[in-house]
Amino acid sequence: MPWYLVAAFLTLLTSSQGILTTLSQSHGKYRYDYATVPFLAEVFKLLVSSFFLGKECQSSSPPRMTREWKTVRLFPIPSIIYLVHNNVQFATLTYVDPSTYQIMGNLKIVTTGILFRFFLRRRLTTLQWMAIVLLTVGTTTSQVKGCGEASCDSLFSAPIQGYMLGLLSACLSALAGVYTEYLMKKNNDSLYWQNVQLYMFGAIFNMARLMLDDFRSGFEYGPWWQRLLDGYTVTTWLVVLNLGSSGLLVSWLMKYADNIVKVYSTSMAMLLTMVLSIFFFSFKPTLQLFLGIIICMISLHMYFAPAQKLVDLPTPANLASDTLKEIACERIGES
Amino acid sequence: MPWYLVAAFLTLLTSSQGILTTLSQSHGKYRYDYATVPFLAEVFKLLVSSFFLGKECQSSSPPRMTREWKTVRLFPIPSIIYLVHNNVQFATLTYVDPSTYQIMGNLKIVTTGILFRFFLRRRLTTLQWMAIVLLTVGTTTSQVKGCGEASCDSLFSAPIQGYMLGLLSACLSALAGVYTEYLMKKNNDSLYWQNVQLYMFGAIFNMARLMLDDFRSGFEYGPWWQRLLDGYTVTTWLVVLNLGSSGLLVSWLMKYADNIVKVYSTSMAMLLTMVLSIFFFSFKPTLQLFLGIIICMISLHMYFAPAQKLVDLPTPANLASDTLKEIACERIGES
Repeated sequence: MPWYLVAAFLTLLTSSQGILTTLSQSHGKYRYDYATVPFLAEVFKLLVSSFFLGKECQSSSPPRMTREWKTVRLFPIPSIIYLVHNNVQFATLTYVDPSTYQIMGNLKIVTTGILFRFFLRRRLTTLQWMAIVLLTVGTTTSQVKGCGEASCDSLFSAPIQGYMLGLLSACLSALAGVYTEYLMKKNNDSLYWQNVQLYMFGAIFNMARLMLDDFRSGFEYGPWWQRLLDGYTVTTWLVVLNLGSSGLLVSWLMKYADNIVKVYSTSMAMLLTMVLSIFFFSFKPTLQLFLGIIICMISLHMYFAPAQKLVDLPTPANLASDTLKEIACERIGES
Repeated sequence: MPWYLVAAFLTLLTSSQGILTTLSQSHGKYRYDYATVPFLAEVFKLLVSSFFLGKECQSSSPPRMTREWKTVRLFPIPSIIYLVHNNVQFATLTYVDPSTYQIMGNLKIVTTGILFRFFLRRRLTTLQWMAIVLLTVGTTTSQVKGCGEASCDSLFSAPIQGYMLGLLSACLSALAGVYTEYLMKKNNDSLYWQNVQLYMFGAIFNMARLMLDDFRSGFEYGPWWQRLLDGYTVTTWLVVLNLGSSGLLVSWLMKYADNIVKVYSTSMAMLLTMVLSIFFFSFKPTLQLFLGIIICMISLHMYFAPAQKLVDLPTPANLASDTLKEIACERIGES
């Protein structure tokens, strides 16, 4: 499957994730424990990957599977980074309000570009760097508060610690992505075997989180496994399946495409969610959303379109024939 | 003088124009008749151009001056277009509020690009088209109303006539610019001779406007020439000199650069005015101004930077040597 189809599918899934999550609430509240959703999504991804790995093992050419501890021990690292990230996020939100945090979250596009360049040593052209900055600016533009909205001017008035933590959060988020890409491309192991390792640790870390919540609440509501599916509706299951499926697509992109593709895919999903919210939840369309969409579309074209479609280039054919003429001329001069 | 220095100087003059005009008010009102300012600016430009034309005539190589009626009759046309434009502007403002009109005014960047392409037959690359759209988006972003500002939602709620007239206004504004460029580049006449013709008609049209105002008010305040300089201060004179000087720079750019350079110069001036207003008039800096500046800077770079600085190109040298190798290989094959 070509990467852009996978990316387009990821965009659709990610944008419907926002809509589904809102639809899964009743009267603006979650009737289920939201922390169970990522846990079940990890379990879903683990089951799907195990199934396909099993099929690969039965096939005539068995999959490549590196089972050395030296390699396996790298797979919990993304989960650990996400764990640290979640705590930094929590700390940031004690200094800044959620909408400022959301605006700062766009910085992860730029930090992903920087880590992609220096950690994975991928070269980007000046035009691609400009495209990455534009994507950040475009998503931010779409989130600019319109007139009449509450909590004015909060953006420039948070304490400096808030901005530092926001930046750290953007770096950690980018690091998790770039590290996963490094892991997936490190060797030619089967994607499903890599997934099984990744989601095994993911499930364990998410389970630990549910346990920690239980300890924090003093087992007031009983242990997590007894109330795992409490309040689950069809929509909640769709949220789980959606989150799981998008995770599988992200893994695929990390192995066969890259982090920048993923960043574009999720940014476009954010804009699509905003457009869909106009229809689903009668949100008012704003000028800034419209501007943000144009900026991101231009950015997309700048990053991915081949250079010869953007600028006038001397075609190799022309150059070659010019060179031939020169040689011919020189020969005539010589003779 | 290189065109980018002239453009930079025009940016400085245009942005100080906004600041000076505000400073020339006392208690938020003009103590002088603002319609006299463009008239005196035309007279100033006419005097300066006549002076330099006179010097050119005395020099050893007299300037080229086409004096045929066939050419001279083209010079009032820009003034006529501006006259129509002013009336369309007036009509537009009966349908839309001033801030919506200002937002729609950015469309003249795109219409200038289109007329530049089809009227002057100048080719633009895809990247340059994207840059022009981005410049429009960037200036618009900087003008998005922040939260807490008055007159919400007015942008999408004007009657359709308002938008049609706004579009017509953008087309006329672009047409005046593109027509002037056509006029200035039509022949190799001396810039000063072309200016003298342009500003002669400019002064006449502005004088006619002052007379019309007199007739409209029934000569209540006496004829315009008796109260021409009423209420003029040093700042008012600076406004006149500034407007006149920027006009002369625009003429220069029309002859030796082009409309797109002018559009960039005045767009950057608009942003600079907003930044200067933060310091001069303690305006609040907004996120959208910051985003708008980044977008316009990227657009500037996209439009003017040479292609090889933006994308990785196969250099002609490499290609040439590859071709040579191929030829060498073929020869070896032949022998």
